[in-house]
Amino acid sequence: MSQKSDIEIARAAAKKPIFEIGAKLGIAAQDLIPYGHDKAKVSQAVTQGVKDRQDGKLILVTAVSPTPAGEGKTTTTVGLGDGLNRIGKQAMICIREASLGPNFGMKGGAAGGGHAQVVPMDDMNLHFTGDFHAITSAHSLLSAMIDNHIYWGNVLEIDTRRVVWRRVVDMNDRALRQITASLGGVSNGFPRETGFDITVASEVMAILCLARDLSDLEERLGNIIVAYRRDKTPIFARDIKAQGAMTVLLKDAMQPNLVQTLEHNPAFVHGGPFANIAHGCNSVIATKTALKLADYVVTEAGFGADLGAEKFMNIKCRKAGLSPSAVVVVATVRALKMNGGVAKDDLEQENLAALQVGCANLGRHIENVQSFGVPVVVAINHFVADTDAEVELVQSYAQGHGVAAVVSRHWAEGGAGAEDLAHAVVAAADAESDQFAPLYPNEMPLHEKIETVAKRIYRADEVQMDATIRNQLKEWEAAGYGELPVCMAKTQYSFSTDPSQRGAPTGHSVPVREVRLSAGAGFVVAICGEIMTMPGLPRVPAAETIGLNDKGDIEGLF
Amino acid sequence: MSQKSDIEIARAAAKKPIFEIGAKLGIAAQDLIPYGHDKAKVSQAVTQGVKDRQDGKLILVTAVSPTPAGEGKTTTTVGLGDGLNRIGKQAMICIREASLGPNFGMKGGAAGGGHAQVVPMDDMNLHFTGDFHAITSAHSLLSAMIDNHIYWGNVLEIDTRRVVWRRVVDMNDRALRQITASLGGVSNGFPRETGFDITVASEVMAILCLARDLSDLEERLGNIIVAYRRDKTPIFARDIKAQGAMTVLLKDAMQPNLVQTLEHNPAFVHGGPFANIAHGCNSVIATKTALKLADYVVTEAGFGADLGAEKFMNIKCRKAGLSPSAVVVVATVRALKMNGGVAKDDLEQENLAALQVGCANLGRHIENVQSFGVPVVVAINHFVADTDAEVELVQSYAQGHGVAAVVSRHWAEGGAGAEDLAHAVVAAADAESDQFAPLYPNEMPLHEKIETVAKRIYRADEVQMDATIRNQLKEWEAAGYGELPVCMAKTQYSFSTDPSQRGAPTGHSVPVREVRLSAGAGFVVAICGEIMTMPGLPRVPAAETIGLNDKGDIEGLF
Repeated sequence: MSQKSDIEIARAAAKKPIFEIGAKLGIAAQDLIPYGHDKAKVSQAVTQGVKDRQDGKLILVTAVSPTPAGEGKTTTTVGLGDGLNRIGKQAMICIREASLGPNFGMKGGAAGGGHAQVVPMDDMNLHFTGDFHAITSAHSLLSAMIDNHIYWGNVLEIDTRRVVWRRVVDMNDRALRQITASLGGVSNGFPRETGFDITVASEVMAILCLARDLSDLEERLGNIIVAYRRDKTPIFARDIKAQGAMTVLLKDAMQPNLVQTLEHNPAFVHGGPFANIAHGCNSVIATKTALKLADYVVTEAGFGADLGAEKFMNIKCRKAGLSPSAVVVVATVRALKMNGGVAKDDLEQENLAALQVGCANLGRHIENVQSFGVPVVVAINHFVADTDAEVELVQSYAQGHGVAAVVSRHWAEGGAGAEDLAHAVVAAADAESDQFAPLYPNEMPLHEKIETVAKRIYRADEVQMDATIRNQLKEWEAAGYGELPVCMAKTQYSFSTDPSQRGAPTGHSVPVREVRLSAGAGFVVAICGEIMTMPGLPRVPAAETIGLNDKGDIEGLF
Repeated sequence: MSQKSDIEIARAAAKKPIFEIGAKLGIAAQDLIPYGHDKAKVSQAVTQGVKDRQDGKLILVTAVSPTPAGEGKTTTTVGLGDGLNRIGKQAMICIREASLGPNFGMKGGAAGGGHAQVVPMDDMNLHFTGDFHAITSAHSLLSAMIDNHIYWGNVLEIDTRRVVWRRVVDMNDRALRQITASLGGVSNGFPRETGFDITVASEVMAILCLARDLSDLEERLGNIIVAYRRDKTPIFARDIKAQGAMTVLLKDAMQPNLVQTLEHNPAFVHGGPFANIAHGCNSVIATKTALKLADYVVTEAGFGADLGAEKFMNIKCRKAGLSPSAVVVVATVRALKMNGGVAKDDLEQENLAALQVGCANLGRHIENVQSFGVPVVVAINHFVADTDAEVELVQSYAQGHGVAAVVSRHWAEGGAGAEDLAHAVVAAADAESDQFAPLYPNEMPLHEKIETVAKRIYRADEVQMDATIRNQLKEWEAAGYGELPVCMAKTQYSFSTDPSQRGAPTGHSVPVREVRLSAGAGFVVAICGEIMTMPGLPRVPAAETIGLNDKGDIEGLF
């Protein structure tokens, strides 16, 4: 059992040169664009050149409803990838990039944990290869061009009260949530209200993560709705003529980033859209490229399976023509006990009764994933305090759903601790029993899509949508957006919209407060609760204690 | 004579792998941090490891007063570097990085031109190695932490009307010049007026370019004055505890960027502070490292010699302990004719009378530079339409000042066209006749420093400074800032503060409208005219026609 912290383990790791990691995937040195000695982008020559190859098998890692106890989804993704390699499979992983800003609020998110990590951790939590900065720049350019258009005569007749394109910055800065811009007189434009979101909430991020290639990227950027006229007709980014320059700013960011696990297995870390107002998965281009380069590709989705897996299936897989061969639902005894009502401070004690109650959360996630026609394996991400009886309870509960639940010790043991999980996942994926289908057809009306997710996944009794929202959806259908999937923005802590309702609540209703059209990304967002798109810093931000020590190492970030 | 555009020449160039360029400087591959195959950062092991070596000779390239005709300062810097290498000297160049935002307004700035360029030009005008993004992030973090401090109780008693630290973005966005932030109620903070500057105007940029090393960087960041209390006592970034995290964000950006000229000679391209409210030179760490790695280091300063060279001498050299061995004043026949009153459309015609008048501008710049005790060489950057008689007139005018004026054809011919200039520069530098001294001593009172520059460099009759400004300067002297140099913010188009007064105006007075204290960078800014720190986009921004063509090349950026 390791006594070291994640960052100590990460720093002690002997990384291999990134060209060696690329060579494992058959990528020539000239097709990697290095960023330092341990990170590289994969060139367009690779992403476009491998298109005719056969696909490997896609494994999605998702989880029970998140709790403060932690479920270890990324850690399991990394451990499973290493485990697959250890049992002789050619496997790689695909995960999301971290957002810079939040690291200065709370201590930063590592990429995995313990002996199941992706490195270099420091860089990945700071500027990495600059992708998010590029997204901020592209978003900012469009923002500036909109106000510039208004300033120089407003030929497009933008209603300055109806500019829906806000600004972004990759920093937790609550002072920018709501501002009045263009103050100071004639030379600064027409004063209007607007505000900033954090970069990961930008539609540009969602677009980058769904685009097939650079020309698809440009087309989607052009389709962004930036404002409306007084007659409510939309104005697109292409009307502002911003999509070409935005594509130029994003051309490097569109290339997947290659790094390595602690066990020197390849990992793509690329893109990181919000998991509420967007779909919360790494980029399509990374996943599709990985499937051409490896026999097994392990990827993850944000939050619990009700949000992350649902969007992975209904948005990412549908749009990209992907079909997962198996899904791993990560559970921990701790998280299930919290879902069963145990307080965080009492988690170290065995509590089979609460665990039994909490298992209902796992059961519902299993059923939901199975409803997409994909085989499920439960990974019990092992913690030190888990008792044998607790583990056995979860296993027998899963067996009751016809699903194997495999204990995995990758956090403590790395890939060796995930070999059993790897065998179970290979068995499920190779059985080729999947008959993947999204939950609803493209042609279903938008309000029915929302109801379908709410009733079949969240198990709500009803969906509350007032006439304004229903009419808005009908207008979008009339305008040709009826075929889009829906992107649900809901609390990740409960199947319901009440974060305190852990476990497997029933009898709830889902209020849809607002709908938004992400016409470039290609989905309709249904907002069911308070959604924060610009976090603030806490009373004592982590930034106050972050710094370089005498050795030049970063302190306080992790 | 080349018929190709700058970008065509740059793209046709056969670049050498950056590790080969590093090897020319004796830098081992593991001490270079590659960004792609043609850019690299130089590790701290190099910048700190070479400190005990002997310095090479420092050559500053400056120019006559800029006109729309162009003087070709960067082009001459690059050509001279290549020329020195061609005549058997071990030489490298140090220039500034380009700002991203302005490229989307007007067509972008190349790094040099013709056959005297630094490559890769595309990258250098886009994200390059991410330095400016890092500066934006560090600046933004401090901004967020200030408002966060106020939000959580304002223990430091910041007067919210006296927050002097604004926000920055690397985009021309006039709508952000003046805003009201923290609107929307209790959870978003206390509404107050603020605004955004463009990133190159950030004091963080000036600090990065003056810092000796990471610990000096952190100390300077901590010294930034962010706000005042009601009693007007200052609040520093270190009071907000931001300097450590800002340093972490900047640690990679502090490493000089290595690229190459078209002739495969090494070039550092690092940092790019505004040349009006800041000092307008590339980083001290790049220049000092280059002096340890090469026998001759050619660098440049912003604008004409009255601003750029003056600040180079009085701010950068003074602070960093540098001593230039020679200064090249770049002149073109065209620019001197415009300084002599010729309109831009009439520049193709020979006009010896106007040229004679315009030479007074050159003469004054020569005298000014000589007053720092450094030998001067004039480079006549040759244009196609220059007549022999015109060139001879400039040469004989320069001889009248005891200075050689050498025709240089690097734009058309690369380093081969700059060999004569290179020989002249070596002769001047190797004569070791320089007796460099800044224009004024540290202990001179601040208002006298301003007057000294205005009278001795601008040749003004008087300086107008009202009592408020004089008192402000006295307060800063009392607070211990009296030893700082002054950083003059004035139009670059004239020795006077009236941009239409070309040539060598006399009898003018310099009004100091405002003074600002950049306590972290370490200078007092004297603003003499309208200074714009956030540009806007033009009616038809270049961004509208920027895009990727079918081959994946960028169109419209250059």
